Amino acid sequence: MPDFLTFLETRKQLIEDKLPSYIEELKAPSSLKSSMNYSLQAGGKRLRPVLLLAVLNAYGKDESIGVDAACAVEMIHTYSLIHDDLPCMDDDDLRRGKPTNHKVYGEALAVLAGDGLLTQSFALLAESGNRIPAEIKVRLISELVKASGAEGMAGGQVADMEGESAALTLEQLQYIHEHKTARLLQFSAVAGGILSDAPEADIKKLREFAFHIGIAFQIKDDLLDIEGIEEKIGKPVGSDSVNEKTTYPSLLAADGAREKLNEHIEKALNLLKSLNIDSFLLKGLCRLVAERDH
Amino acid sequence: MPDFLTFLETRKQLIEDKLPSYIEELKAPSSLKSSMNYSLQAGGKRLRPVLLLAVLNAYGKDESIGVDAACAVEMIHTYSLIHDDLPCMDDDDLRRGKPTNHKVYGEALAVLAGDGLLTQSFALLAESGNRIPAEIKVRLISELVKASGAEGMAGGQVADMEGESAALTLEQLQYIHEHKTARLLQFSAVAGGILSDAPEADIKKLREFAFHIGIAFQIKDDLLDIEGIEEKIGKPVGSDSVNEKTTYPSLLAADGAREKLNEHIEKALNLLKSLNIDSFLLKGLCRLVAERDH
Repeated sequence: MPDFLTFLETRKQLIEDKLPSYIEELKAPSSLKSSMNYSLQAGGKRLRPVLLLAVLNAYGKDESIGVDAACAVEMIHTYSLIHDDLPCMDDDDLRRGKPTNHKVYGEALAVLAGDGLLTQSFALLAESGNRIPAEIKVRLISELVKASGAEGMAGGQVADMEGESAALTLEQLQYIHEHKTARLLQFSAVAGGILSDAPEADIKKLREFAFHIGIAFQIKDDLLDIEGIEEKIGKPVGSDSVNEKTTYPSLLAADGAREKLNEHIEKALNLLKSLNIDSFLLKGLCRLVAERDH
Repeated sequence: MPDFLTFLETRKQLIEDKLPSYIEELKAPSSLKSSMNYSLQAGGKRLRPVLLLAVLNAYGKDESIGVDAACAVEMIHTYSLIHDDLPCMDDDDLRRGKPTNHKVYGEALAVLAGDGLLTQSFALLAESGNRIPAEIKVRLISELVKASGAEGMAGGQVADMEGESAALTLEQLQYIHEHKTARLLQFSAVAGGILSDAPEADIKKLREFAFHIGIAFQIKDDLLDIEGIEEKIGKPVGSDSVNEKTTYPSLLAADGAREKLNEHIEKALNLLKSLNIDSFLLKGLCRLVAERDH
């Protein structure tokens, strides 16, 4: 059994090698393919696809049956970053130190590259080989719509924009992060469970597990903004405060936010304990979310 | 058997009654739902969903099994209109005499409403009741991705934008219309055939049929721009020429464009003749595309 960081690195590499292949085979204008691939290859933690593969691994399944679904969720995540960065949304010029999609390709192509990635992700699920029964594919597609559409991530982005200049309550803040961040992680965990043929009771627990991971991830992001190291987090320390953003530390103070982070990690670990799986990798993921420095 | 215009009107009404119901049931921010519904309810010919139902009718099938798929293709069409109208794309303030989505809801919500409709359309196919086998749902989803994504409509929009200021050849013009317009009509015809359990040879012919209908539709659009009646077409006559757009009449002259229109309609009618179906309604559709005044 490899340790979690080795697992993370090898699976991240596997996903990054695979992602461009879906775009290269498309019969489409080269500018569009180039724009789609630019953002797909712009790095990132690849946490969502790696979580999906880690769940398959925890059930002792062949991870290769989950690669298409793992790439699908990463495509959705990537489309959301492209659209969120647009001038009419967050108007960001840089992401992970590289120019954002619309700075390189222009706004029109950035909108269409996002649309193209969003659309293509459903083909990855629908055409994911004949080892996966059609009933399972349909269920995964339905889960991905709920996670990413109006009821999920897109709805979370609307709530985030509408709450930008307002002082949010903890409940409102959690709504945003549950939808904007946790939902896609929940898709990953649930899809891993469904592809592992896990019992429905397990699927339910995996969904809760990823909810806690998602919220913990966001609290950690907020904490890094006030106590991280600029070179590691890739943006100025304290930018949330400058932008008057409501964050977990702004509502609960740093100590309160750390306590909340630990609570969510604790709940995630307890859910793992209650599952009859090899949870070594998923525990490593919990530690990573809580202890990362970027 | 009702005549074609009665069929068109009743099915258009059915689709327009059904579309908002998919949005109303979503647990999502009310502004997002309102923005999605605004464009869904902004009228239009509803040609794509009606074609799908007309194919089911031609095979003597229960049209109700196709309503979700019909609404899915209309959602995709609607998302594409919202994104195409954005300031960074065609920058249109009006569509069908009403303010465009971003003029009412702002650009950010317009982008997200488009994303939401695009995403939701796949749920309509995935969750389309248990009368449709999972294998069929997966096939429809795969067809809808091809029709609407980088290989289809989104690719056509890229080619359209890139060709805007250039003088296009007939081949380039056809690439744009094949992808931007014909592909979704082809989805409708093919989905109707698949849901009717039609033989693969029929599916192939239906795909060609809708290709000809799509190109004919676009040629007619170009002709209406030079010889239509302003009040009927809802925009100034001659606007393509003012915008220096390459059109069928600009390349072939009006007579040549009319000839080309008739050729495509002729081919569509011949394909219908070669199918063992009740093609009364589909013939009516061909006439409508060729003879419409708006």
